[in-house]
Amino acid sequence: MKRILIKEGTILSMKEGEQAFTGDLLIEGDKIAMVAPMIDQPADQVISAKGMAVMPGLVNAHNHGAMSLLRGFSDDLKLMDWLDKKMLPAEARMTEEDVYWGTKLAIAEMIRSGTTTFADMYVCMDAVANAVVESGMRASLTRGLVFLQDDGGRRMREGIDLVEKWSGAGDGRITTMFGPHAPYTCPPEPLREVIALARQRRIPLHIHLAETKEETVKIRENYGETPTEYLYHLGMFEHTHVLLAHAVHLTRKDIGYLRGMRGGVAHNPVSNLKLGCGIAPVMEFKRQGITVGMGTDGAGSATTLDMFAEIKAATWMQKLDYGDPTQLSAEEALRMATIESAKLLGIDHEVGTLEAGKKADLILIDLNQPHLQPIHNLFSLVAYSVNGSDVDTVIVNGQILMRQHQLTTLSWEEIQREATSRAARLVEGL
Amino acid sequence: MKRILIKEGTILSMKEGEQAFTGDLLIEGDKIAMVAPMIDQPADQVISAKGMAVMPGLVNAHNHGAMSLLRGFSDDLKLMDWLDKKMLPAEARMTEEDVYWGTKLAIAEMIRSGTTTFADMYVCMDAVANAVVESGMRASLTRGLVFLQDDGGRRMREGIDLVEKWSGAGDGRITTMFGPHAPYTCPPEPLREVIALARQRRIPLHIHLAETKEETVKIRENYGETPTEYLYHLGMFEHTHVLLAHAVHLTRKDIGYLRGMRGGVAHNPVSNLKLGCGIAPVMEFKRQGITVGMGTDGAGSATTLDMFAEIKAATWMQKLDYGDPTQLSAEEALRMATIESAKLLGIDHEVGTLEAGKKADLILIDLNQPHLQPIHNLFSLVAYSVNGSDVDTVIVNGQILMRQHQLTTLSWEEIQREATSRAARLVEGL
Repeated sequence: MKRILIKEGTILSMKEGEQAFTGDLLIEGDKIAMVAPMIDQPADQVISAKGMAVMPGLVNAHNHGAMSLLRGFSDDLKLMDWLDKKMLPAEARMTEEDVYWGTKLAIAEMIRSGTTTFADMYVCMDAVANAVVESGMRASLTRGLVFLQDDGGRRMREGIDLVEKWSGAGDGRITTMFGPHAPYTCPPEPLREVIALARQRRIPLHIHLAETKEETVKIRENYGETPTEYLYHLGMFEHTHVLLAHAVHLTRKDIGYLRGMRGGVAHNPVSNLKLGCGIAPVMEFKRQGITVGMGTDGAGSATTLDMFAEIKAATWMQKLDYGDPTQLSAEEALRMATIESAKLLGIDHEVGTLEAGKKADLILIDLNQPHLQPIHNLFSLVAYSVNGSDVDTVIVNGQILMRQHQLTTLSWEEIQREATSRAARLVEGL
Repeated sequence: MKRILIKEGTILSMKEGEQAFTGDLLIEGDKIAMVAPMIDQPADQVISAKGMAVMPGLVNAHNHGAMSLLRGFSDDLKLMDWLDKKMLPAEARMTEEDVYWGTKLAIAEMIRSGTTTFADMYVCMDAVANAVVESGMRASLTRGLVFLQDDGGRRMREGIDLVEKWSGAGDGRITTMFGPHAPYTCPPEPLREVIALARQRRIPLHIHLAETKEETVKIRENYGETPTEYLYHLGMFEHTHVLLAHAVHLTRKDIGYLRGMRGGVAHNPVSNLKLGCGIAPVMEFKRQGITVGMGTDGAGSATTLDMFAEIKAATWMQKLDYGDPTQLSAEEALRMATIESAKLLGIDHEVGTLEAGKKADLILIDLNQPHLQPIHNLFSLVAYSVNGSDVDTVIVNGQILMRQHQLTTLSWEEIQREATSRAARLVEGL
């Protein structure tokens, strides 16, 4: 079993109440064996983390990886123009191979910027899963289920195939969910079926909720209730772990329906800002004891998969919303991007903090740079001043996926070449 | 005269209406001699910009450089606690040497992240000016004038000294302004005097305006008007070029008072978000023909001097405020951070776009990275996906200040050492 010893880092374990300290971390195989001020043990590889922060890898709780092929393709447009005239026609051209390379592009960006786990909802999930297995990343995969044009039977089967074929793959790095897309794309009948299936197989659900005002209007027109009430009355929050993406437009009563739910909310601050959707009631969720993690959404909207940008944006939005700089502190935002997101994916017993017995998913951040000195408070520094490019080393499941900014499991040249030619084909004439 | 030829870059000139194109750029001495699809001329140094964007250096229109020593020292506090209990006591300890090293730290961060010019308002301006001259940066310097404890005579004299001693220094890289700090720190009498002095000497003014709601309440209590009305009725906008920093809380009538003004507004999105101040009416300023540039404010509040973070945040805030993703486009935000900011500093004839005859202030951005591929639209990519760490090369006044991420005029080791020990002393016991 390979032993990697990380020496003299500034350790930000993200364990509740623990401050940063100078110390060492020992990895044995795929697990963290020890975290302590000083570890004097033999190891196959010693990594100096002097001048670096050592923290849990970031957990991106909502993404559509392959959309990275469409990054920056249709910015600054009205939401419906963005979707109908640009994104959907381009996505309609995507082959399984496009999804494979788009996902690899997304994974390359995520590794480079310190993300070690992501929750993905997309199509052609065999391609996505293969990209995850090959890259060494950890992921929670979901086949998006839309029931508009037909009964969605084929998509349902693909969703079930994903769960049966890929759960536990990649040495346990892959977990799966069922993915009814959103209240406005899922009528009551098929949605009830998916909920029943999830309960029966004990598989979590991943769904978009109330991303836009338009959605709340549409659901009120169709069902006479809010999107949250719609899901609540179908029994979605009973006995089932649910990952709710976005959750921007909720009434106080809606938030009450989520109290005590299993799972929680994946906040997507940059996407919500960039599309002009609004500010999710993050502080209110937290006050009601609802778990709130963080995701990027696809790069088609967010244009970046840098979780450090999300961390900053999340704090800014709450401070702005309340006119109060004490709302959503640096430490709270960092917890959202690590252990709270891990809870949403149901893997908080494995990742999200640095402690002995957990999987070795961690990152080293190079602090010896002009924008990261002097160091007064490490939580503040990491949340407000670090960006994705400052990540030096990334380890997932005990495997080094990036060292000194160089990817070890992926060929960037190959990804760059494939992404460029495929992206050009997807958008041609649009 | 040294000739530098930059070859095969993707040129984003920021000239009105010009799209990105592949081309070369020739520097002769301190000036841009030619920008064209292909330049075949001898040069002393040839720089390959293949796979890179070449654009004007960013212009940070409002900063307090030396506050970088206090980055991350007091985040997540109420504005008045932040100011009274932390920032002001720490700043009161600052010596001239602290200001010198704090400014060098700020300049190191700015160069690293693609800023070539900054407007600074602080104290001990000889120290600031020396740091600017030595580093090779371009700057507009202002001695902040507060008239609360006394008649401010000493500070006034220092403000005049700065203008007389440093205007045009560093081969013309330094310009100066007079700096009445803010409506709430400048009573009518001394403010009238500064305005008269500025007019008489034809020197611009740099002032904070309506950053917080509290300021509008205070000025209403004292003078029965808004902060903008207060300045307007003192004649500040007649015949004088004025750089208004922040300008968050303005009524529609206030905005009307600014129509036709010389100078304009320096928007500080990240600082405004992080301190929970609010969203400045940027689109309304633009509709009224008021110039709007962009700045970071000091790192004590913004925690970063990365103008690419400001560019993103500026677009997000307007899109959020209007619930409309078409507001403040990528191109508009990039103009704010370059040519519009240059107008605020009164140096738009010299910098802010890439064109023959202007000073050679420009940056190269490395696009061959996972978060910057594929390239659909260069404005979108640079505004929404680039961050400061992607800047590879920085040239100011024809001098290379950074090449392949390495600073050439500053010693980072020395700055890091000085900043760390001085910062520790400044905050001790606070």
